[in-house]
Amino acid sequence: MSLDLSTPVAQRVAASFARQGMMNHLDAKLLRVVAGEVEIALPYGDKVTQQQGGFHGGAMGALADIAGGYAALTVLPEGMEVTTVEYKINFLSSKQQGELRAVGKVVKGGKRIVVTTAEVFHLDALGQSTLCAVMQQTLVPVAQTY
Amino acid sequence: MSLDLSTPVAQRVAASFARQGMMNHLDAKLLRVVAGEVEIALPYGDKVTQQQGGFHGGAMGALADIAGGYAALTVLPEGMEVTTVEYKINFLSSKQQGELRAVGKVVKGGKRIVVTTAEVFHLDALGQSTLCAVMQQTLVPVAQTY
Amino acid sequence: MSLDLSTPVAQRVAASFARQGMMNHLDAKLLRVVAGEVEIALPYGDKVTQQQGGFHGGAMGALADIAGGYAALTVLPEGMEVTTVEYKINFLSSKQQGELRAVGKVVKGGKRIVVTTAEVFHLDALGQSTLCAVMQQTLVPVAQTY
Amino acid sequence: MSLDLSTPVAQRVAASFARQGMMNHLDAKLLRVVAGEVEIALPYGDKVTQQQGGFHGGAMGALADIAGGYAALTVLPEGMEVTTVEYKINFLSSKQQGELRAVGKVVKGGKRIVVTTAEVFHLDALGQSTLCAVMQQTLVPVAQTY
Repeated sequence: MSLDLSTPVAQRVAASFARQGMMNHLDAKLLRVVAGEVEIALPYGDKVTQQQGGFHGGAMGALADIAGGYAALTVLPEGMEVTTVEYKINFLSSKQQGELRAVGKVVKGGKRIVVTTAEVFHLDALGQSTLCAVMQQTLVPVAQTY
Repeated sequence: MSLDLSTPVAQRVAASFARQGMMNHLDAKLLRVVAGEVEIALPYGDKVTQQQGGFHGGAMGALADIAGGYAALTVLPEGMEVTTVEYKINFLSSKQQGELRAVGKVVKGGKRIVVTTAEVFHLDALGQSTLCAVMQQTLVPVAQTY
Repeated sequence: MSLDLSTPVAQRVAASFARQGMMNHLDAKLLRVVAGEVEIALPYGDKVTQQQGGFHGGAMGALADIAGGYAALTVLPEGMEVTTVEYKINFLSSKQQGELRAVGKVVKGGKRIVVTTAEVFHLDALGQSTLCAVMQQTLVPVAQTY
Repeated sequence: MSLDLSTPVAQRVAASFARQGMMNHLDAKLLRVVAGEVEIALPYGDKVTQQQGGFHGGAMGALADIAGGYAALTVLPEGMEVTTVEYKINFLSSKQQGELRAVGKVVKGGKRIVVTTAEVFHLDALGQSTLCAVMQQTLVPVAQTY
């Protein structure tokens, strides 16, 4: 699946994503950007493991945060960015190998507050999918400063 | 400040911390381990930035998660590990340069559930400290499997 | 809509619900109980208002907590109860008059931990539905003691 | 302890509190209002119990929400109200009889977002105090409309 960059909103998200040192460093990839929904992938590797060799909760949290945040960005007018006010994440299972996929969705967009959810799935080599984490998040729109 | 490894609990936490691929990769350091409280440091660098050059929320979340988790580990009997069930984190400010410090504390320990909080501070080059995030977390004790 | 009490799981939920002083007092009603999903209604009135005359966040939180908790109960074996470990709720809008409906759903059931979500809707006199709150919750199964 | 109403901020909080139908109905009382901190009491009774006779999580949640919300109000300029964006609450123990006390504190006040925490304690007839719940909350300032 290659990212469809034909829409202005996908271009905005891709431009912001490219500036994220941490996401680049972890080899995270933007997979899908549509109005109200964004999907991101993160490959397995020793940059993202915890003490038992599974994907680190911190990696799942970062991925969910980003997926929810960019989903929020898709419903804001041009020239705006979002800042994460807070999120809450439940971890359901921890997997090794394969890759993580985080899908962020807007629950409610507003001028002052955007609420999103994200689900983090694990995909193994056979394409088997397991739900690993669910997140609920609050963001605020802010003017873009760069 | 160098880590005091003279107690069994500090040795257990340090041994587990050393196995965390992600924490090693981000150059996180264990600073302090006492019963019910753990402090961890994370240096600034392009591995941990977001699109505006500040520390990434994902890095703050991972650090807070780990600080709270190891604080929980200090109140459990030998042979036990902890798994994060969930956490909720509020981001208060985002800083560049310097380093982050996360301090995790046990609110209530129990056989089935441990509840912790963590605060993430930024320290600049002059030693000025700013509160950047607060987290509330739920963990379960599990038998150590490695 | 009258509650279908023909299944054992609906009977168990109804028996527990009847013991909830607070829910009885607020005139909350159990509407629907199926495996993994429970719906509860709460009528408007001055027992459940905040300072501006809308439904109180505390009432929405209580209703969501109960809906998620009873959804969890439907996936547990007989003789078990659930205890709420924690929940997180986002408030999206506050309405007057009509009634609230909370729909709780199990995200993942387990022996040690059950994770649920709940949505709280407002229904006005014309049957118009508005999403008012979304909740994410963690529960533990415990032996029934009464 | 009787509420000190000598300050403008205590008068504002008391005036808003008096308008809360649900709080009045549950016999909740405002105990203490100082800049950045508010304490509220809730007596035991069958209006606030769950199926095992302990204080209902919904009552603890409502009380914590209100305590945190009014703590936030104390740091805002005159003419402003607060709306709860979201909160997350962990339940640590459930007690019968006596009363609950919720203490809300401002973690960080701002023009767009206020973050608070609250602790809910149980006080028994002998004055013994037990921590029952901890909450972390996000609010937004809004113009007062009544």
